[in-house]
Amino acid sequence: MSKIVTFGEVMLRLSTDNYRKIQQSDIFRASYAGSELNVAVSLANFGEQTYFVTKLPKNILGDTVISVLNRFNVNSKFIKYDNNRLGTYYVERGASQRPTKVIYDRKFSSIALAKSLDFNWEQIFKGADWFHFSGITPALSDELTEICFQACVKAKEMGVKISCDLNYRSKLWSKDKASEVMKRFMPYINILIANEEDAKVIFNYEYSDQSSIDMKSYEYIIREVFNRNSFDKVFFTLRESLNSTINGWSSISCDKQGISRSKKYDIYIVDRLGGGDSFAAGIIYSELKSYCTKDQLEFATAASCLKHTINDDFNLSSVEDVKNLLESDGNARIKR
Amino acid sequence: MSKIVTFGEVMLRLSTDNYRKIQQSDIFRASYAGSELNVAVSLANFGEQTYFVTKLPKNILGDTVISVLNRFNVNSKFIKYDNNRLGTYYVERGASQRPTKVIYDRKFSSIALAKSLDFNWEQIFKGADWFHFSGITPALSDELTEICFQACVKAKEMGVKISCDLNYRSKLWSKDKASEVMKRFMPYINILIANEEDAKVIFNYEYSDQSSIDMKSYEYIIREVFNRNSFDKVFFTLRESLNSTINGWSSISCDKQGISRSKKYDIYIVDRLGGGDSFAAGIIYSELKSYCTKDQLEFATAASCLKHTINDDFNLSSVEDVKNLLESDGNARIKR
Amino acid sequence: MSKIVTFGEVMLRLSTDNYRKIQQSDIFRASYAGSELNVAVSLANFGEQTYFVTKLPKNILGDTVISVLNRFNVNSKFIKYDNNRLGTYYVERGASQRPTKVIYDRKFSSIALAKSLDFNWEQIFKGADWFHFSGITPALSDELTEICFQACVKAKEMGVKISCDLNYRSKLWSKDKASEVMKRFMPYINILIANEEDAKVIFNYEYSDQSSIDMKSYEYIIREVFNRNSFDKVFFTLRESLNSTINGWSSISCDKQGISRSKKYDIYIVDRLGGGDSFAAGIIYSELKSYCTKDQLEFATAASCLKHTINDDFNLSSVEDVKNLLESDGNARIKR
Amino acid sequence: MSKIVTFGEVMLRLSTDNYRKIQQSDIFRASYAGSELNVAVSLANFGEQTYFVTKLPKNILGDTVISVLNRFNVNSKFIKYDNNRLGTYYVERGASQRPTKVIYDRKFSSIALAKSLDFNWEQIFKGADWFHFSGITPALSDELTEICFQACVKAKEMGVKISCDLNYRSKLWSKDKASEVMKRFMPYINILIANEEDAKVIFNYEYSDQSSIDMKSYEYIIREVFNRNSFDKVFFTLRESLNSTINGWSSISCDKQGISRSKKYDIYIVDRLGGGDSFAAGIIYSELKSYCTKDQLEFATAASCLKHTINDDFNLSSVEDVKNLLESDGNARIKR
Amino acid sequence: MSKIVTFGEVMLRLSTDNYRKIQQSDIFRASYAGSELNVAVSLANFGEQTYFVTKLPKNILGDTVISVLNRFNVNSKFIKYDNNRLGTYYVERGASQRPTKVIYDRKFSSIALAKSLDFNWEQIFKGADWFHFSGITPALSDELTEICFQACVKAKEMGVKISCDLNYRSKLWSKDKASEVMKRFMPYINILIANEEDAKVIFNYEYSDQSSIDMKSYEYIIREVFNRNSFDKVFFTLRESLNSTINGWSSISCDKQGISRSKKYDIYIVDRLGGGDSFAAGIIYSELKSYCTKDQLEFATAASCLKHTINDDFNLSSVEDVKNLLESDGNARIKR
Amino acid sequence: MSKIVTFGEVMLRLSTDNYRKIQQSDIFRASYAGSELNVAVSLANFGEQTYFVTKLPKNILGDTVISVLNRFNVNSKFIKYDNNRLGTYYVERGASQRPTKVIYDRKFSSIALAKSLDFNWEQIFKGADWFHFSGITPALSDELTEICFQACVKAKEMGVKISCDLNYRSKLWSKDKASEVMKRFMPYINILIANEEDAKVIFNYEYSDQSSIDMKSYEYIIREVFNRNSFDKVFFTLRESLNSTINGWSSISCDKQGISRSKKYDIYIVDRLGGGDSFAAGIIYSELKSYCTKDQLEFATAASCLKHTINDDFNLSSVEDVKNLLESDGNARIKR
Repeated sequence: MSKIVTFGEVMLRLSTDNYRKIQQSDIFRASYAGSELNVAVSLANFGEQTYFVTKLPKNILGDTVISVLNRFNVNSKFIKYDNNRLGTYYVERGASQRPTKVIYDRKFSSIALAKSLDFNWEQIFKGADWFHFSGITPALSDELTEICFQACVKAKEMGVKISCDLNYRSKLWSKDKASEVMKRFMPYINILIANEEDAKVIFNYEYSDQSSIDMKSYEYIIREVFNRNSFDKVFFTLRESLNSTINGWSSISCDKQGISRSKKYDIYIVDRLGGGDSFAAGIIYSELKSYCTKDQLEFATAASCLKHTINDDFNLSSVEDVKNLLESDGNARIKR
Repeated sequence: MSKIVTFGEVMLRLSTDNYRKIQQSDIFRASYAGSELNVAVSLANFGEQTYFVTKLPKNILGDTVISVLNRFNVNSKFIKYDNNRLGTYYVERGASQRPTKVIYDRKFSSIALAKSLDFNWEQIFKGADWFHFSGITPALSDELTEICFQACVKAKEMGVKISCDLNYRSKLWSKDKASEVMKRFMPYINILIANEEDAKVIFNYEYSDQSSIDMKSYEYIIREVFNRNSFDKVFFTLRESLNSTINGWSSISCDKQGISRSKKYDIYIVDRLGGGDSFAAGIIYSELKSYCTKDQLEFATAASCLKHTINDDFNLSSVEDVKNLLESDGNARIKR
Repeated sequence: MSKIVTFGEVMLRLSTDNYRKIQQSDIFRASYAGSELNVAVSLANFGEQTYFVTKLPKNILGDTVISVLNRFNVNSKFIKYDNNRLGTYYVERGASQRPTKVIYDRKFSSIALAKSLDFNWEQIFKGADWFHFSGITPALSDELTEICFQACVKAKEMGVKISCDLNYRSKLWSKDKASEVMKRFMPYINILIANEEDAKVIFNYEYSDQSSIDMKSYEYIIREVFNRNSFDKVFFTLRESLNSTINGWSSISCDKQGISRSKKYDIYIVDRLGGGDSFAAGIIYSELKSYCTKDQLEFATAASCLKHTINDDFNLSSVEDVKNLLESDGNARIKR
Repeated sequence: MSKIVTFGEVMLRLSTDNYRKIQQSDIFRASYAGSELNVAVSLANFGEQTYFVTKLPKNILGDTVISVLNRFNVNSKFIKYDNNRLGTYYVERGASQRPTKVIYDRKFSSIALAKSLDFNWEQIFKGADWFHFSGITPALSDELTEICFQACVKAKEMGVKISCDLNYRSKLWSKDKASEVMKRFMPYINILIANEEDAKVIFNYEYSDQSSIDMKSYEYIIREVFNRNSFDKVFFTLRESLNSTINGWSSISCDKQGISRSKKYDIYIVDRLGGGDSFAAGIIYSELKSYCTKDQLEFATAASCLKHTINDDFNLSSVEDVKNLLESDGNARIKR
Repeated sequence: MSKIVTFGEVMLRLSTDNYRKIQQSDIFRASYAGSELNVAVSLANFGEQTYFVTKLPKNILGDTVISVLNRFNVNSKFIKYDNNRLGTYYVERGASQRPTKVIYDRKFSSIALAKSLDFNWEQIFKGADWFHFSGITPALSDELTEICFQACVKAKEMGVKISCDLNYRSKLWSKDKASEVMKRFMPYINILIANEEDAKVIFNYEYSDQSSIDMKSYEYIIREVFNRNSFDKVFFTLRESLNSTINGWSSISCDKQGISRSKKYDIYIVDRLGGGDSFAAGIIYSELKSYCTKDQLEFATAASCLKHTINDDFNLSSVEDVKNLLESDGNARIKR
Repeated sequence: MSKIVTFGEVMLRLSTDNYRKIQQSDIFRASYAGSELNVAVSLANFGEQTYFVTKLPKNILGDTVISVLNRFNVNSKFIKYDNNRLGTYYVERGASQRPTKVIYDRKFSSIALAKSLDFNWEQIFKGADWFHFSGITPALSDELTEICFQACVKAKEMGVKISCDLNYRSKLWSKDKASEVMKRFMPYINILIANEEDAKVIFNYEYSDQSSIDMKSYEYIIREVFNRNSFDKVFFTLRESLNSTINGWSSISCDKQGISRSKKYDIYIVDRLGGGDSFAAGIIYSELKSYCTKDQLEFATAASCLKHTINDDFNLSSVEDVKNLLESDGNARIKR
C-alpha cells in the first residue's frame, strides 16, 4: 500500500434526475466531489492509502464531507476548518444532441479563502509516495497558487513524486494567466495528465474542435509537450464527443520509449463527470505498481471507461473490475 | 416580439416512469400539454409574445393549467371556462423494439364542448401577427370545425398569417372526414406543416410504411401538395423510426424556389411527444424573423431535435440552445 | 386454452435503480421472480391456463408471492408451505462496459428444503398438456433432483409433454455434477431449450467466448445435441453481448427438418433478466398452437426481444404485442 | 366461504404525494378503487368469495383494473366491456387544518353508460349469499337506478340478503332526487349502513355540523330510521373530524334489541378514503359469520380503524389483524 | 386589485425529504423562497397585483427564479441582474423532539452585493398601494440598509403605505446592530409585524423562553411597542413550540382600540417555514380590504395556519381557503 | 476517547416507505443495522473509539457493510469473513392503531455459523475500556453462546467493563432457554440494560401488558433484579405504547443509592427501531464520562428519544444534540 496525498476543493454536487433540465427539477440528487478528491477515492478503491487535503466549513455540510471521506477510506486528518462555505455545483444532465451543463457556485468557499499557514506540507508528506493536484487548485486564488507551489517544492525536496492534471477551467482564470501560472509548476511534475484541449491552452498551441479526433495532431502535441519539459511521462485522454449519450474514449502516452495508444471504448454514458480524474487515478496506481507505460495506458483507460458507467463523480471500480474489463473486451456479460 | 395566437386543447398528461408499462405503474408523472399549447410554449421560450386560446373546466386542474401557462409566459386571457372536464392522456414509454403507447381520454372535455360564441376572434386577433392551429382542433367536434373556420376567416380578414400542422388523429375522425374537412381550410393557410403520412391521408395519396424513408416519394408528394394549393411554403418532418430508442429526424420544404432538405439527426430519445409541435414553433419563429427557407428548415429541425431530448411535451430550448446545436454539429460537448 | 404446469423456485428480487451500484443504493426495487414462474406468467399473459408449483414460507413474503401469482393469473393451488425462508437475489444493473451483477441468497429456502411427499404429481398433472422446468430446479438439492425426476416420469406416463431449459448455474453445482444429473432427464424431454454455453456444459463440448457469435459452431452443436438425443426439437438462444446496453438477440432450432435461424434483434436493454424464460414461454405457446418450427423460432425470439424492454423478470407482452413486432420489423412506431 | 356480490363503479385514483397540493405535484400515485369494489376487496381479504360487477372500457386501463381484481382475489367474470372511459378521481391529501380535496372526473364512464341488458342478475346471483351496493351506483344515471333496482328485486326473489351504504354524493345528484330514489330501495334492504349526515339527507332530517358528535341526536335518528323501515339492522359510522390529521372514529347500531355503541378510536390518519367501505365490509363479514350486533359493531369499527392507517382505498387487513386490534386496545406494539 | 411591492432576497431552498437528516440525504427537494417573495406570492394567490424587487444572477438558476415568479403571478419587471450568485439554504426537517435546522449559504449573493443605483424607487412605486420588507433585507449589507431606507423615504413621499416584519436573523447581524438600524426605519412604518422574540431584540426587552407563551408579557410588550412608536397597528405572532410536530399558533394586535387576541390553532406541521410571511400577507391583504383589526388578526392567523400544512415556503391558499377555515373551526372535513 | 468493543450481528434492513404494507411495496429502503452495531455507531457519533466484531460474507453486501462502518467511524478490523450470507429483515412501518411488523430472515448467516476460533478476544480487548453485547448474540447459536461467554470471561480477566442489554427475541429461542443461558452471563456484567418485559422473561417474573406503565411493578422488579445480582447498576427503559404514532418513553435505574426515574417524553415516532440500542449507548457513554446515575438516566433517555425521530436504526445524534434536548425541554425550536 502506497501513501498518496491529493490537494484541492470538494463541493456539493446537485444533479438533476432522469435528464430533467434544472428548470424542470424539484429534486436534486446530492453527492460530494472535486477533481482531486475523485482521484483519492478511486485510489482508495484500488486499495491504496490516501489523504485528501482541503479546507472545509465547520457545519453540517462540512461534517457530511468528512463522513463521505470516511466511507470511502480517504484520510481526512490534514483537513482544516473555518466558517466560510462549501462550494456547490449544479449538473443538468444532457442527452443525445443536448449538452450537459454544469453551473459552478464555488466562489468564497473555505478552500478558496485558505491561507498558506493552514497546511504544514512537511508533516503532510511524511512517508508519502505520491502527491497529486490538478490545475483547478492553483486557479482558486493567488494564495492557493502559492500554497500549491509550496507543496510542490516540499514534495520534491522530500522525494515525493508529483502528478498534475492540467484541468483548465475557463470560469476560474484566463487562458493567459493559466498558462503563465501552470508553467511555473511544470519543472516539479513527474507525470503530466491532460486532454488535448487543456494542453493547447497551457502550452500555447492553437485550438481546434475536439468532437472528432485528429490523431496526428494529438501525437504532435504530446511529443512536443514531452520534449520541451522534464516530465517522466505525459498522458492525454482523447474524448470523441459524438453526442451526450455516446462518447469515444481512449488515450495516448509519451515517454522516452515514444508514443503509445490505448484501445478506444465507445461508451453509453451514465455520468461523465470525474472521467478524467479516474484516468489520473489509474495512471498513479499503475505507476506505483510499476506497470509499463503501455499497460498503464490501458489500465487507466479501462478504469475511466468504467467511471462513465457509474453515477456521480467517484470511480467505485475495484482493480478487479478494471482487470475484468481489460480481459473481456468490454462485452459486459452478466456476472451471476 | 411578435404576437402569436394558437388555438386548441390542453390535456393532463400522465406518463409512466422509467419505461414501466401502465400495468406496472403505481406512479404517473403529471404534466400539461396539447399540440397548439406546445407550439405556444416553444415560441414563448424563443422570446415571442404568445396567446393560447382554449376552454377549461373551472376546477383545480383548470387552475393548474393556468399556472403552467403563466410559468411559461403564455398569455391566458382569452381562455374560457365551464364545468366540464379536462381531457387526459396516458403515455406508456416504449424502449427499443417496444412501441410507446398513448391512450387518450379526451371526450366531453370543456374545449370539445365549446361553442362558437365562446371566442371573439376579432378581439383575440387584435394586433396579432400569426395564428396557428393543428388538425386536432377541428377534429374535436363539428362545432370546433366551425369555430376554427371562423378563426381562419377572421385572421385572413385581419391580415394575420396562418400556419396549420395537419396532425391527423385516427381516434378522432376517419380519414375521409379528415380529408374533406381539412381541405376546406387549405385556402386560408400560409404555411402548411405535416409529416408524410398525414399529408397522404389529407391529400389522398397512398399510404406506405414510414419506418425507412423513401426520399423520392417524399419529394414527389411535397411538390404536389405545394403545386396544387396556395401555400407560401410547405414543410414536412421525416421521422425514421429505427426503434423506440433511436429515431432519425430530418425535414424537407417546398416553396417557389423548390425543395430543400435539412441535415438529419440520429436521436437517442428522451421523449418524442411534442416533437412535431416544436418543429412548427421553429418554422413560425424563423418565418417571423424572416429566415430564408433553408435556414428555417435547419432551425426548426434542430429545435425539434432538442425537444426529443427533453421530458414532457414542451420544448424548453432557447434560441441560443438551438443555435448552439446548429453550430456544433450535435457533439453536445459539456458546458461548464 | 391449454393447461401448463411449471415447477421451480420463486425469489424476492431486489434491484438497484437507475444504474446505481449496490454500494450506492439506499433503495431497492422489489419484485418476485424465478425461471419457471417467469415462464408461467408469460404463458398466462398469452392467455393460457398455468399452474406454478413450488414451496413457500408461510409469512408476509410468501403471501405476497401468492398475490403476485393471482395478479398474473397463475394458479397457486398446488403450492406448499413451511416456516423456512424465501430466497432473495440482488441485481446491480450494469451499463455500457460495466456488467450487470446478480448476487443470489437462495440457500435454505422453503423450496430448496422441500420433500418428495410435498408434491402429488398425479393430481397436479390431471388434465395437463405441458410440463416445464429448468436446470435450476434439480440443482437446488438432491431431493429436488429426485422430485423433478418423479415429475418427469409421471408426466411421461400421463402423456404430458415436457420442455426443459438447461439454465446451468455455476453457483448451485459443478459442471460435472450438472452434466451427470441433467443427462438423466434428457430421455423424458420433448423440447430442449438452451443457450450455447449451457449446452456445452451439459453435453460436454468445449467452451469458447460468447461475446461474438460463431454461427458455424452453434449449428454444429445444436445438430449434435439433436442427433444424439431423442428430443422432438431443440432451440438455442444466441446472445451477442456487445455491452450491457446493447445486445444482439436471435435463436436457432434443430428438428428432423434440419436447422432454422431467426431474425436477429439489436436490443437497447431495459432489463435482460428473464430473457431466456420468455423465449421458453414463446416456444411452449407456439408448440401448443401447432406453429411450424420456423414460426415458433420467430415468435419466441420476438417475444423474448420484447421482454428485454420490460422492467423485472416477467414478460408482460400479449400475443398481439408479439405479432405486432413480427409484422413491424421492430420500428416501434408510436401507438396512439 | 360465503359468496358475495357487489355492484358499482371502479375508477383510477390519482393521489398527490406527501401532502402536496395538486398544483405542486408533478407526480400522482395511481391506484384503482370504488366504494363497492373496496367492500369486495376487504371481504376477499377476510377470506370470502367475492364478485365485483361493473362495466369497463376495453383498453389498457380496463385491463389493469382486471389485474387488480385478480391480485386481490375478486372475481371479475360478470364484468362487461365497451369503448367508453374509466372514471378518474384526484385526491389532494390535506393535513392538520387543511382539508383533503377530492375531484371527480367520472362522467361518461363505461359504467355510467351501462344498459340494463348488460347484467343478467339471475346468473350473477346463482349461489350468492349477499348483495351489496351503495347510493353511488343508482346515482350514476337513471338507467343505473333501474339496473340497481332490478338487482335488488332479483336478489330478494332469490333469497340473497342485501346491504346498502347510503353514500350520498352531492356532485352526482340533488338531495331531493337522492332521497326520492333511495327510498324506493329501502324495502329490499336487510342491513342499512350510513353516516349521520347521509341518513339526514336521505330520510329528511335537518342537517347540523358533523365536526363534533352529538350522540343524542345520533341515537334519535338511528332509532327513527330503524323504526320507520323494515331493516334487520341499521349501522351508523360516527366520524369526529378534529382536523385532517386526527379523527375520532366510532359507530352505533340499532336493531330490535335496541341501540349499541362501539369503542371510539382516535386515529392518526394515513388515508381516510375507503373508511366507510371497510366498515361495510366488516358488517357483512360479521353478519355472515353470525356475530351478535354488538360484536359486529366492534369488529367493523376496528376493521375500518385499520383502514385509515393504510394507503389507498382498500382495507388490506386480515381477520387476524382486526382481532389483534380488538384484543390489544390499539396499543400497536411492534410485531417481531 | 391593489398594487403591492415587496423587496428582498430569494434563495434556492434545498430540503431533505421525509425527516431525513442532511447526512442521510442523497436527495434534496428544490424550491425558491425568501421572506418578502413569500409575502408577494401569498398576496398574488389572494388575487392582488404584486411586484417583487431583487437582484439575481443571470444564469439558469436566476432564470428559474423568474419562471417561479411567473407561475405565481408575481411581476418581475423591476428585478436587476449581475453575474454573482443566488443564495441557497438547506432545511433539515425535524420531528417530535428533534428541531428543524436551517443552514444558510447566502453571502456574496447578487442581492447582497446590489448597489443603490440598481433600484429606481420612484418608478417602482408609481401607482403602488403598499410596500413591504422584512428586517432581513437591511441586514444583508450596509448598502442594502441604505437602499431599504431610500425605498421607505420614497414610499412615504409617494403616499405608499409600509409594512415591516422585524424578522431578526442572528447569523446576519448582532442584536445591537439590528436594534440600532431597525429603529431608524420605525418612523416610516405603518404596520409593524413581529414575533415576541424579535420585538424584544429590536426594542431592547429582556429575552425569555418562547416554548410556552406568557400572555401577560406579550400584552405588555406589544402595548409598549405601540405606545412608544408611531405605527398604525402592531401585530405579533405567538408560536408555542410544543415540539417539531405540533405547534400552537395564534397572534395578538395592538392599535388605538387596544389589544385583540386571535383564536389559537394547534397545528400538525407539514412545513413551518414561511409561516410568519404568510401572516404578514394576511395582514396586508386584510388591511387593503379594510377589515377591522380583529378580523385582520383572525384572517392572517388562519391564513398562516394553513401555510404550516403546505410544503415549501409559499402559502398557496386562496382567500376562499382561508375563509373556509375561519367558518369551519378547523375540522377540515373532506371536500368532495 | 475510550475504546469500546461491541459484538453481534449486522443485517440488511429492508423497510417499506411511507407507511406502505409489504404487499403494497415495490420499493424497499435499504440500510444496515443490528443491535450491537447500533450501539457502536451511536458511541462513535458521541466521539468514542468503537470496534464492532462480527462475521460477514465476502460479497458485495459484506463489502457494503464495511463501507457503512467506515462512514460512521466504527473500526472493522476484527471482523471475519466466509461465504455464507448476510441476514436480512423486513420492516413494515405501522401507523396509529396498526402495529409495525418486523420479519427476520437471519438464519444461516455468516455470524450465526461463526466458530469460536474466529475471534481472538485477548487481541480484541487489548486497551479496551468497555465491552457490550445484547441477548441476541448468544441466541444466534449454541456456538455463539460459548463465544460470547469466552468474551465475557476474557473481558473480566483483562479489566474490561461489560454491559449487556437483555434484548429477548422469541423467534430465536424459548423463554426457558433464554433465561437459563442469560443467567450464566449475569455474574460478568457490570451494567444491565433491559425493558421490563425482557427482565420478566429472563428473571422469571410474571408477564403483564406493557401498553400502560405500572410504575410500582417496575420499581419492584428493578430493585429485585439489582438486589439478587452483582450488577453495578441496572437500567430499564419504559415504553408506553399508545399507538404506532405516539409512544411515551422514559426509564428508571437502580444502584446502591436506590431508584431514579427519568423525565418522560411523548414521542411522535419517525422510526422506533434501534431505540433501546441508543439508550444503551447513552448509558455507556455517560458511564465512561463518570456521570452520576441520575444524569446518566436523563442523558440516555434524551439520546434515545432523539433516535425515535431519525430514520433507520442508527442514532445519528451528537452529544451536543442530546444536551440541547436536555436543556430545551423538548420544545424543538428551529435552529437557524
